[in-house]
Amino acid sequence: MSQPVRVVRKITGNHLEDFHLGQTFRHKGGKTVTEGLFTTFTEFTMTTNPLAKNARYARAHGFQGLVVPPGLVMLVAFSQTVEDVSENARANLEYIDMRFGAPVYVGDTIEVETKVLGVKPSSSNPKLGVVHVQSTARKNVGEKDQAIVMTWQRKVQVWKKDDAAKVDEGEVPADDIACELWLPPYQAGADYKALAHLSGADTYFEDFEPGTKIEHWRGRTMTTEHIHLTAVLDNTSQVHCNQFMIDQNPKQYVGGQLIIFGGIPFTLCLGLSCPDVGDNALGDRIYTTGRHTAPLFAGDTVFAATEILGKRDLDGRPDVGVLATRLLGHKFEKAKDGEALSGEAAEAPAGFRKTRIFELERELVVKRRSHYA
Amino acid sequence: MSQPVRVVRKITGNHLEDFHLGQTFRHKGGKTVTEGLFTTFTEFTMTTNPLAKNARYARAHGFQGLVVPPGLVMLVAFSQTVEDVSENARANLEYIDMRFGAPVYVGDTIEVETKVLGVKPSSSNPKLGVVHVQSTARKNVGEKDQAIVMTWQRKVQVWKKDDAAKVDEGEVPADDIACELWLPPYQAGADYKALAHLSGADTYFEDFEPGTKIEHWRGRTMTTEHIHLTAVLDNTSQVHCNQFMIDQNPKQYVGGQLIIFGGIPFTLCLGLSCPDVGDNALGDRIYTTGRHTAPLFAGDTVFAATEILGKRDLDGRPDVGVLATRLLGHKFEKAKDGEALSGEAAEAPAGFRKTRIFELERELVVKRRSHYA
Amino acid sequence: MSQPVRVVRKITGNHLEDFHLGQTFRHKGGKTVTEGLFTTFTEFTMTTNPLAKNARYARAHGFQGLVVPPGLVMLVAFSQTVEDVSENARANLEYIDMRFGAPVYVGDTIEVETKVLGVKPSSSNPKLGVVHVQSTARKNVGEKDQAIVMTWQRKVQVWKKDDAAKVDEGEVPADDIACELWLPPYQAGADYKALAHLSGADTYFEDFEPGTKIEHWRGRTMTTEHIHLTAVLDNTSQVHCNQFMIDQNPKQYVGGQLIIFGGIPFTLCLGLSCPDVGDNALGDRIYTTGRHTAPLFAGDTVFAATEILGKRDLDGRPDVGVLATRLLGHKFEKAKDGEALSGEAAEAPAGFRKTRIFELERELVVKRRSHYA
Repeated sequence: MSQPVRVVRKITGNHLEDFHLGQTFRHKGGKTVTEGLFTTFTEFTMTTNPLAKNARYARAHGFQGLVVPPGLVMLVAFSQTVEDVSENARANLEYIDMRFGAPVYVGDTIEVETKVLGVKPSSSNPKLGVVHVQSTARKNVGEKDQAIVMTWQRKVQVWKKDDAAKVDEGEVPADDIACELWLPPYQAGADYKALAHLSGADTYFEDFEPGTKIEHWRGRTMTTEHIHLTAVLDNTSQVHCNQFMIDQNPKQYVGGQLIIFGGIPFTLCLGLSCPDVGDNALGDRIYTTGRHTAPLFAGDTVFAATEILGKRDLDGRPDVGVLATRLLGHKFEKAKDGEALSGEAAEAPAGFRKTRIFELERELVVKRRSHYA
Repeated sequence: MSQPVRVVRKITGNHLEDFHLGQTFRHKGGKTVTEGLFTTFTEFTMTTNPLAKNARYARAHGFQGLVVPPGLVMLVAFSQTVEDVSENARANLEYIDMRFGAPVYVGDTIEVETKVLGVKPSSSNPKLGVVHVQSTARKNVGEKDQAIVMTWQRKVQVWKKDDAAKVDEGEVPADDIACELWLPPYQAGADYKALAHLSGADTYFEDFEPGTKIEHWRGRTMTTEHIHLTAVLDNTSQVHCNQFMIDQNPKQYVGGQLIIFGGIPFTLCLGLSCPDVGDNALGDRIYTTGRHTAPLFAGDTVFAATEILGKRDLDGRPDVGVLATRLLGHKFEKAKDGEALSGEAAEAPAGFRKTRIFELERELVVKRRSHYA
Repeated sequence: MSQPVRVVRKITGNHLEDFHLGQTFRHKGGKTVTEGLFTTFTEFTMTTNPLAKNARYARAHGFQGLVVPPGLVMLVAFSQTVEDVSENARANLEYIDMRFGAPVYVGDTIEVETKVLGVKPSSSNPKLGVVHVQSTARKNVGEKDQAIVMTWQRKVQVWKKDDAAKVDEGEVPADDIACELWLPPYQAGADYKALAHLSGADTYFEDFEPGTKIEHWRGRTMTTEHIHLTAVLDNTSQVHCNQFMIDQNPKQYVGGQLIIFGGIPFTLCLGLSCPDVGDNALGDRIYTTGRHTAPLFAGDTVFAATEILGKRDLDGRPDVGVLATRLLGHKFEKAKDGEALSGEAAEAPAGFRKTRIFELERELVVKRRSHYA
């Protein structure tokens, strides 16, 4: 063999000028949910809803078996869009209209498509712009139980490769994707009460009062495990796993260290909230909007709180109700010497400041005690 | 929506005054054993018994498939009792009469009940007392293969919430729980010898001699992985996963750092002992008594030893025998300058002291070479 | 019970004088591939080939389901040989003629045998010698889908227990093991094109040009997770997991810290190369030779490159071709003050040196665009 004469280094992902209005990406890979993936993530988040713990409980409620929690559905679906949409992103700006459909079980295969809804160059920085996309995740494509499991939009701040390149600026309408949370039918003759001891006793629909803010009790310290968790999701963005890249230019990267993939605090906050608001949910219906407000690093301890925003009936389903909430994530950082703290930042032990890391407008469908306990 | 007006922080778990003699807890959650849970824990412990490694070996011995090792059965069952029994505990004092019953397979769902046998306030400290409980774990409740998989008692030192509160002091008798180790029948015509190369050649019943102490060869260094392992078990006690809580009051917590959940060294010591005493066991019959004698932290390396206490026949089963042992776990710590060490502490390399962390009286049912090799 | 009178510490593994020409080891344990093992390792390596991600894609190509990637087949098989062959090794010198056969699926049980081909004492060091072995891994022994999944040779530098002991020096011929990569038949009527968006668009057989060197884009920082990963493989060698042993004699161990099991960078380099060379492979055919050239530690970031050595047709299979490559792994280390770097070591950012850690001659069977896209 002759010596290699040509050295190749592929550039992955798209830059701002590569996105075109109305363009559709059919993302690579797809992902089958194994029991390994299911357990790694479900348990990492400390979720307590027995639908994701106890197969007999899930079946008795009308599901086929253990139910993949919404945070994990989101992570499996979202991560498939990273290479095409946000490999070259500076920041993920906003989650919009994130809706859930069919339940996901172990063995299901998830595949995702994304349509480009908008491209907008920055008015102040010629190297940046915002891409607005709509993604839809289906399970078991081409098989008889094919179904939409999730659809969402997001806005991402993406780098240009060439400052001078032309950008396909504009906005097109979102597709109308039929994606409503599937609920197992209420079986009038079923003995739901015999299962009631398995979930929390004080998290039925009747228990929530708008205007309440619940500070969830538990915190969870993150470790370098985030590198592996992120790889498990097929999110291979280098800022989450390549310390050598960071060490060469620490000032270019926030905190000078590996940043934890935003999907991790997203799903962890959902889990930390579970004993207080999610234990008797049949599912999450929609995340109207959400965003990350500060970075998270190995060593940080994550906490969460939920504001109860409102309650309403669900048509045709007297056994459940819709709970509108705001999920908030935070961590505590050492306060600087003499730093004057106000507002939320001051809600911290002496010497610390509270930093909000995540917020999500979230609606859950919650069982009523009258029908289940 | 109006601004939240009411901030809520739930307190989980019971305090000394909340326990009542004869009271029964039906614990929340339950847990289905997935292949993810099975592999994470079985391999973490470094167990070598092929019943938990090799499905064809397990089936040829009369099991339905890979057998969940006793340490993992214990962890899955025990952890379900934490929130109700020991979330507000100062220390787990003793495991008592821990007996195994039906085998547990991947796909089985474990649920647990606990009865309060005794409550006793401390005579010296008005803030503390001891709760004595009996727990029983069943699999597949309500299904045709429902069975008891484990029953045990434990004593826990629990905090009072209100020093002045009345305590339901006393002791009631333990329930008589039928829980005997299920053993697959010995099949006279089966070619067990064809499988003999798959397990250790020197760990048959005939190989053990009472009066022997086996220092198990392998050690295993613990890392911060313990945070995740503990979460996988649904044990959400904050002293195992909330570093921020520790950092605020390091002096209040042993070692000023996250303490490793006792179930981790429990199962790890079982695993480390496996190549020397457990490779040809069909199961663990009983842990008569056991306790943790020192805390374990990330960075510590765990070692184990087994004393062979006795041997006896098992009625109606000439193919196996019962081996009575004492399992001991230890770690090494830097000795203090000029520290004079004696006894077990002195069994250490120069500059170190040996610290016992765990002890367990343990009976195994072990195959005889005469019948299997 | 009397106090223990006899303390036993078993020595595991063989020393140079224990190996005999033509001797066969039937290794202990065996290992059933669970979904937990599958996901932990497949995702750790960052492999992107949908055969290991997407069950419908795998089935549409003629496999029974998710396909265990070659790196994981190798790790599961190789690790079973460690206790008998290399527990007392100083170094693994070379992998030779490593060939793959039947595909491995979740649920398959792998068992391994090893034959001693050669024993050669060192001419310069009376404490050392080289053992040459041939190992073969079978799945589902005794069942109707029994098949050889892998066969390979390796040379290992092994310690003597007794410098003066006689060694069975010599060499015997390797067995002729029939082990050819199984390929699913090409189905003329199948709509492979409908799946083409799921794998990379530029990694078909037609896309590779001999003489090219591809620097794979992604790097992956290793953490102390390697301790757990190694245990998951049943490789219990103490240099990978017993920090206390290292701390007692740091100078005796390379780097004075736990060394990462060579199988980890082996499989990680395969994974890192996947988006550029493996995304459209139906399997790896052979690793002609391979070796580790420098140790890897927690904190190191692993990178990989692939040289395209050659291409050729495969008899009777116009739909695929054989791609001959050299896979290279490297890391970057801080350069010493004033160190003059040359050759490969100089291919590094300022202040660093490039250190090759691994190399493997590797042939893949790759789909042709003409038939699949």
